[in-house]
Amino acid sequence: MRQRVITAVVALVLFIPIIVYGGIAIELTAAVLAVVGVYELFRMKGLEVLSFEGVVASLAAVVLILPKERWFFFLPEKTDNFMLFYLMVMILLGALVASKNTYSISQAGFPVIVSLYVGVGFQNFVAARSSGLVVLLYALFVVWATDIGAYMVGRKYGKRKLFPAVSPNKTIEGSIGGIVSAVVVAVLYIAFVPGKEAFTYDMPIMIVLTIIFSIVGQFGDLVESSIKRYYDVKDSGKILPGHGGILDRFDSLLFVFPIMHLLGLF
Amino acid sequence: MRQRVITAVVALVLFIPIIVYGGIAIELTAAVLAVVGVYELFRMKGLEVLSFEGVVASLAAVVLILPKERWFFFLPEKTDNFMLFYLMVMILLGALVASKNTYSISQAGFPVIVSLYVGVGFQNFVAARSSGLVVLLYALFVVWATDIGAYMVGRKYGKRKLFPAVSPNKTIEGSIGGIVSAVVVAVLYIAFVPGKEAFTYDMPIMIVLTIIFSIVGQFGDLVESSIKRYYDVKDSGKILPGHGGILDRFDSLLFVFPIMHLLGLF
Repeated sequence: MRQRVITAVVALVLFIPIIVYGGIAIELTAAVLAVVGVYELFRMKGLEVLSFEGVVASLAAVVLILPKERWFFFLPEKTDNFMLFYLMVMILLGALVASKNTYSISQAGFPVIVSLYVGVGFQNFVAARSSGLVVLLYALFVVWATDIGAYMVGRKYGKRKLFPAVSPNKTIEGSIGGIVSAVVVAVLYIAFVPGKEAFTYDMPIMIVLTIIFSIVGQFGDLVESSIKRYYDVKDSGKILPGHGGILDRFDSLLFVFPIMHLLGLF
Repeated sequence: MRQRVITAVVALVLFIPIIVYGGIAIELTAAVLAVVGVYELFRMKGLEVLSFEGVVASLAAVVLILPKERWFFFLPEKTDNFMLFYLMVMILLGALVASKNTYSISQAGFPVIVSLYVGVGFQNFVAARSSGLVVLLYALFVVWATDIGAYMVGRKYGKRKLFPAVSPNKTIEGSIGGIVSAVVVAVLYIAFVPGKEAFTYDMPIMIVLTIIFSIVGQFGDLVESSIKRYYDVKDSGKILPGHGGILDRFDSLLFVFPIMHLLGLF
């Protein structure tokens, strides 16, 4: 527990200035975290990240994350990051030819879904910051309030299992606690934060959306647990002492942020 | 051969008015062709398209193709087709949880790469038409001139095998014939077509690009051949008597059109 708290404090001390500064700092941070995420997923499956597939998947995630205006300004006006990502997919499809039929489109699907899962998640982390610190903090508070609320309520009142096949320690009571906690934090934050006109919707809609985001965040956690359970590992990595890997820490965020973008929050 | 010619004539008679009309006609046609393409790839791998994975992959391809302004106008302003596509990816990731760890992220990669391969290809077919008939026809002429030139030169002068492990009938002579044929057709077309100011670049650059597109088109053909060879099928389908399936007919286009978009042609 002590190690866990120390890691969290150190991470926050590093993380807060990056979030506040935004711009190039958050873009590079997101890109590095994404590459570590790709590495963790490759290692779970027993693949080397320093392989053709690993390098292409890392690049595919990175080109989704780094905004065109700053990083790919040399591209023609009509094209965008998605086409750069798709170039990586085409390179993987090209490997089918180069491998002389030993590599299949089905195998090439793994680096593609990995780079999307991690890349689009962190892409939207960057997009939330570009949209303003007010919106990014709302998003982070919803994710964190869900996690902490679920943990505390679950520990105290947890009885009925939520999804034991995937995550045996989670309870229905904890899950509801996470939702309530997210709504309370979101309402207080939106009511009192200066610059709340940055939000697309009014308070009643924001409450409904917060409930959705809290559920999606918990679902993102279950998705990552499913992946770990399938590959029979406890943590996605060891980079954060007491917290596991990057995916363990960002699993909710990877699911919530794209849904927030889809629903027009940023 | 007679059946082949009849099919080609019938297809062109159906195809030309759709291309000329553009808009909703070409969007729906592209969406239908994409779903058939997804079906063909699923069948090659021995999977049902009328399965959870097949339906999600078909939808994922379709939401890439249908332009937001006409089909998804109800989406918030800040979001786009790519996020709808990614919603389908998230649904496939969600299946990991629902399956209670029997379905892996690696398996979920197949529907994702299939929907990208077919979806982004036809997305750019529609994008080329939106950019104007002049550009779309250039793109089609390059693909067709490559095919016909490679076939005719290869038949007459073909000696050295190009890539026998993947496609035993292709020759280096044929491949070069395809490139020369594409350049000749492109130069004549660009020089004489009314409205050539639709092209982003001047003639010398267009010649270099045409060579690249012709090579990419032939490569796209090899990619599809690799997929078929891996799954040990002769044709991707039987929808076009004498021509095989949709993928057999559109394999070059699926590779060339995205590269054209990436290089700023439309």
